Amino acid sequence: MTARSGEFDLIARHFAPIAQKSKAALSLLDDAALLTPPAGHEIVITVDALVADVHFRNQDDPTDIARKVLRVNLSDLAAMGARPLGVVLTAGYNRNLSEDWIAAFARGLGQDCDAFNAPLLGGDTVATPGPTFFSLTAFGAVPTGRAMRRDAAKSGDVIAVTGTLGDAALGLKVLQGGLTDLNEADKAFLSSRYLVPQPRMDVGMKCAAGNARYAAMDVSDGLTGDCRKICTASDVGMVFDRESIPLSDATANAVRDNPVLWESVLGGGDDYELLICAKRADIDALGLDVTIIGEVTDQSGQVYLRDADNKMAELAKGGFDHFGF
Amino acid sequence: MTARSGEFDLIARHFAPIAQKSKAALSLLDDAALLTPPAGHEIVITVDALVADVHFRNQDDPTDIARKVLRVNLSDLAAMGARPLGVVLTAGYNRNLSEDWIAAFARGLGQDCDAFNAPLLGGDTVATPGPTFFSLTAFGAVPTGRAMRRDAAKSGDVIAVTGTLGDAALGLKVLQGGLTDLNEADKAFLSSRYLVPQPRMDVGMKCAAGNARYAAMDVSDGLTGDCRKICTASDVGMVFDRESIPLSDATANAVRDNPVLWESVLGGGDDYELLICAKRADIDALGLDVTIIGEVTDQSGQVYLRDADNKMAELAKGGFDHFGF
Repeated sequence: MTARSGEFDLIARHFAPIAQKSKAALSLLDDAALLTPPAGHEIVITVDALVADVHFRNQDDPTDIARKVLRVNLSDLAAMGARPLGVVLTAGYNRNLSEDWIAAFARGLGQDCDAFNAPLLGGDTVATPGPTFFSLTAFGAVPTGRAMRRDAAKSGDVIAVTGTLGDAALGLKVLQGGLTDLNEADKAFLSSRYLVPQPRMDVGMKCAAGNARYAAMDVSDGLTGDCRKICTASDVGMVFDRESIPLSDATANAVRDNPVLWESVLGGGDDYELLICAKRADIDALGLDVTIIGEVTDQSGQVYLRDADNKMAELAKGGFDHFGF
Repeated sequence: MTARSGEFDLIARHFAPIAQKSKAALSLLDDAALLTPPAGHEIVITVDALVADVHFRNQDDPTDIARKVLRVNLSDLAAMGARPLGVVLTAGYNRNLSEDWIAAFARGLGQDCDAFNAPLLGGDTVATPGPTFFSLTAFGAVPTGRAMRRDAAKSGDVIAVTGTLGDAALGLKVLQGGLTDLNEADKAFLSSRYLVPQPRMDVGMKCAAGNARYAAMDVSDGLTGDCRKICTASDVGMVFDRESIPLSDATANAVRDNPVLWESVLGGGDDYELLICAKRADIDALGLDVTIIGEVTDQSGQVYLRDADNKMAELAKGGFDHFGF
């Protein structure tokens, strides 16, 4: 076992410098942080946990792991239309992890907290005999009454998505040694999309800033499964146009060579793109780089995929379930 | 491996019914919760993680574990003078845990969320191949500017404590098969003090309600070590009177039979009583059941124990450090 400092020293050396930047953190001297909520806003709270060898790979760069821990939570804030106010982190480090690993993790976290204006307000650090785990709780502010909810979709809405879908699922395959036919640039792009997601803060905040109705969520467990959460909450159905689904060049190359990969593109997780349902005019009014991929129907719980020949197929359930799959 | 439902089913069956009670939880249909902060208040945020076989014993009643997970965090809110607004929970269940265990955990959590008016607002549920872990983030409200901080102690203050000290440390010894000379009632009392702490919400809120200066913290890792956190933050020292330290009958019996147990009483953790520094008049004004056990000095970082013969001894550092001990 590598010699490692005690909990208090670890926090003082690696995490207190990050937290110094926010008055709310009370310099991590207290067991709690203080947040002054901005007037006219509600507080959005979200929490996501990542466990080694379940949600990230032990051999991944700790800097990237830290960024992912933060960004998957920021993505949930984005899906509600919130701007970040701060985060608290629980870190359960495996007892054999080196202090270098922890230092690299703290560096990555600090950089991204700065980049997204999401200061570290506090946390808890423990040692575990099991796999390293992180649980991050993120706080955001959204104008009162403007949070985007999953129960707000209506029949006749169009469905828009940010960025491109499927990259992360294929990136994981690349990292696991698959998709060997792709060129190195495509492989590197796809891997990076798995390792470091891009939370769509700007799109979320733009939706919440206006007066229009938007239902939204982030696609973390795959479009196929995740879209049903809006269907359930809003009592609607959906039809997607396969030809409209935005693909990166790398993913387009991969599915052209091997069409069965469509299953991963539609059902695989970790994209962290926003899925937004609204009137077409309200999507257009965003003036942002989103792609319309389908429409909301009144057939509650029914999700279909329309292919290039206008054939409709029911989209299989699934999505990534941590226990069930 | 016992058959167990998927994550979504687990949440729907055991946790959604608890969360239904709060509008902020959005019925757990969204990945985030919404909190409307009360006017004129700051939000206090605290997080504490518990890992099986580090912070609780695998064989403990899951209902008690749930109550402890909640209460150690409520104790941090109490130490800041806050009243609870809600909590979010990350649960990482070992893959072999039965659904019965999880159901019992959820029951305990729901009961205590009700009892302390701290609704479950959301969370994340994952499976882990390692030890079961929980990370709970609690939110409270404190009148703006009235949060009790560790840096507010001043030389000349008295030091008061709620409840009795040492019970939990001795309770853990009982649970581990020790202290066999104690009678059954004492053993049961001490064990319960370890298993289910009593967060001192009323005392904390009373302090924050007035205009006087209070510095406070909860004693979670033992008086000996924890008191130094106030010493460091406030740049002061402390002298405790051993004879004044409030002991339960059970602990008094134990230390009378075996004076070496004083070390556990002073240095052992898990009491979750509040340590409050303030002017004597401001302690008296609380009109609550607290005991004055010492005074704050200007000898920065120096902590002494005065015994019945007025002899002073330096109190050894220590406290429970998750990595260092």
